[in-house]
Amino acid sequence: FPSRLPNVGTTIFTVMSALAVQHKAVNLGQGFPDFDCDPKLVDGVTTAMQQGHNQYPPMTGIAPLREAIAAKIEALYARRYDAAAEITVTAGATQAILTAILCCVGPGDEVIVLEPCYDSYVPNIELAGATVVRVPLTPGTFRPDFDKIAAALSPKTRAIIINTPHNPSGTVWSPADMRRLDELLAPTNVLVISDEVYEHMVYAPLQHESVARYPGLAARSFIVSSFGKTYHVTGWKVGYVAAPAALTAEFRKVHQFNVFTVNTPMQHGLASYMQDPAPYLNLPAFYAAKRDLFRAGLARTKFRLLPCEGTYFQSVAIDQLAVPERELSEADFCQWLTREIGVAAIPLSAFYGDGFDQKVVRFCFAKKDDTLRAALERLARL
Amino acid sequence: FPSRLPNVGTTIFTVMSALAVQHKAVNLGQGFPDFDCDPKLVDGVTTAMQQGHNQYPPMTGIAPLREAIAAKIEALYARRYDAAAEITVTAGATQAILTAILCCVGPGDEVIVLEPCYDSYVPNIELAGATVVRVPLTPGTFRPDFDKIAAALSPKTRAIIINTPHNPSGTVWSPADMRRLDELLAPTNVLVISDEVYEHMVYAPLQHESVARYPGLAARSFIVSSFGKTYHVTGWKVGYVAAPAALTAEFRKVHQFNVFTVNTPMQHGLASYMQDPAPYLNLPAFYAAKRDLFRAGLARTKFRLLPCEGTYFQSVAIDQLAVPERELSEADFCQWLTREIGVAAIPLSAFYGDGFDQKVVRFCFAKKDDTLRAALERLARL
Ligand SMILES: CSCCC(=O)C(=O)O
Ligand SMILES: CSCCC(=O)C(=O)O
Repeated sequence: FPSRLPNVGTTIFTVMSALAVQHKAVNLGQGFPDFDCDPKLVDGVTTAMQQGHNQYPPMTGIAPLREAIAAKIEALYARRYDAAAEITVTAGATQAILTAILCCVGPGDEVIVLEPCYDSYVPNIELAGATVVRVPLTPGTFRPDFDKIAAALSPKTRAIIINTPHNPSGTVWSPADMRRLDELLAPTNVLVISDEVYEHMVYAPLQHESVARYPGLAARSFIVSSFGKTYHVTGWKVGYVAAPAALTAEFRKVHQFNVFTVNTPMQHGLASYMQDPAPYLNLPAFYAAKRDLFRAGLARTKFRLLPCEGTYFQSVAIDQLAVPERELSEADFCQWLTREIGVAAIPLSAFYGDGFDQKVVRFCFAKKDDTLRAALERLARL
Repeated sequence: FPSRLPNVGTTIFTVMSALAVQHKAVNLGQGFPDFDCDPKLVDGVTTAMQQGHNQYPPMTGIAPLREAIAAKIEALYARRYDAAAEITVTAGATQAILTAILCCVGPGDEVIVLEPCYDSYVPNIELAGATVVRVPLTPGTFRPDFDKIAAALSPKTRAIIINTPHNPSGTVWSPADMRRLDELLAPTNVLVISDEVYEHMVYAPLQHESVARYPGLAARSFIVSSFGKTYHVTGWKVGYVAAPAALTAEFRKVHQFNVFTVNTPMQHGLASYMQDPAPYLNLPAFYAAKRDLFRAGLARTKFRLLPCEGTYFQSVAIDQLAVPERELSEADFCQWLTREIGVAAIPLSAFYGDGFDQKVVRFCFAKKDDTLRAALERLARL
């Protein structure tokens, strides 16, 4: 039978993680911590299981978790979402994004993505039968280019996917960026899918600009976030969507027929853990220290450092390296780096529909300091 | 924006469970146990979390779990699936079914469902943009009617969804049924999505007929199963799909962009627990005892018992009850039963696209014996 996703292979994250294991490379490719979560969080899940919280939770997520999410958003972004009608717990952010897309776009609709972008967005739109409209972020700086976005809007535009802090580039949208988007969309019915999974990793003096802060945007947005990134439990696969009641109602229609519900014990563990805001409030300092350690090491190599305002990703240009492999494609360079130098990275070309190659690769610094030092030692050979 | 699923409300399971809570009714509606899982299974998950298995697992599922699944299928159904290329761990069976549909059907394709059927099938097909072709099971007996299925096949038929043991009716397909389906599809390219989530609940003298046993069917089938049902952990949301490598490759393309991966600690807990086949081998006896208790009690009422060959569901006709409410629609009867008699049930009309009403409702007997006795006492009032 004909493939529904003929242009899709295995995700680059899976490919590079497998290669890293094979070559015993330091894996700075796929974004996940190599340190563990807070044991208190594990205890909360264990307690939930022992108390018998092992059957279906409510389809929307357990009430205490939805309420904790609403309280967090209100505390940080000064917008009140109704926990019952506007928050839905999801099986991670990827499931949330597919579900948001499936619930609001279909054949004949156009969806704008800003490239480079996370590799699930484009196939998600294709699965909905809609048309992908690719708009590049500004080359080099990866900042949004609102003239290009304005030019891409059409009567068929149903939605735009934005992502700040931005994976892979680590840029963070400014208040001016948010206002520009708000103005641009004001005369339209365009929905926003706002991927904010790195919301708690924005480095001083910047702060995260959630669409929740901008009433005009919030009214048309599905906000997507992820506990995996925030609490160092990427394998637990719990995230959420916050959206106005009318959008949430449509989201849940699809959600209930996709995963139906999300792991009960994890939801209970997360709900009790969220009572303490310290873990997510401390995250910027925790990751800024790792970023600084990693950048200081890279500054002593011939990799050219790009800015890192947020996320746990650091991108570097490879064009000034002293090795002939700098001439390889990003993808081949990453394979070579993994095999021969022993450090796995992700080519930025994986985040472009047309495989655009600008000689930039992405490292993940959500790693123990010793891991980062080991990687830097290997990279120093270049 | 226009709804992608205009005909869909909240699932009947969610609605009836909420109503049961509201009226403190005995909830025999939504299918889940009111007893707990084996504490050993909880211990396995706790150990995994404490050992640090909290980050992304491989996209396909952890190897030990895929291997345990392949070993089980081989032991029970004499077909060897390759654990690496033919087994994928999913976030429950519902996610597996949506993913299977999205990966193989699209606009212009027809998909056959046999009604009554689980309520996610039809919206899943609609989300894929394909056309639903409804074929009724034989009225009264709920057995497959192969003449009707043959008549529904067209050059556009891309897939058929089958489900044995059957939710809601509890019927189990015979070897002759499987052979008929195999013959019917032999000259076609039609794929089979085989929902076998109740595979371990088939009552003597019958046995489960997995499509895995029938080479012609297995070669065209996505087999879907669920650990939630088998191990009394419906809230853990882990299931799997077994399918030939070419089908699995397409399945994984969509899976990776839907949930990407499935809860790591639960996968480890399940993988170690599966080393012991006793828990699933004992399941038919365990549930047959509950079925017999429940049926014996119902036999003393004016509910008319339908057969129950498998699953943990017992359907009954309400047409001979001595109360005027027997004249209500199934859905209204279930509401009344929950509110006034204190027992929640599911109307069979929820499993039909056109809401066909045959005065039959479904009870779930995956409950403590005391719960079943309490429900029977209330039902005896009718
Ligand atoms: C979902 S796997 C990839 C993790 C991630 O978000 C990334 O590495 O970009
Ligand atoms: C996924 S919720 C419903 C559980 C179930 O399978 C049923 O009650 O039929």
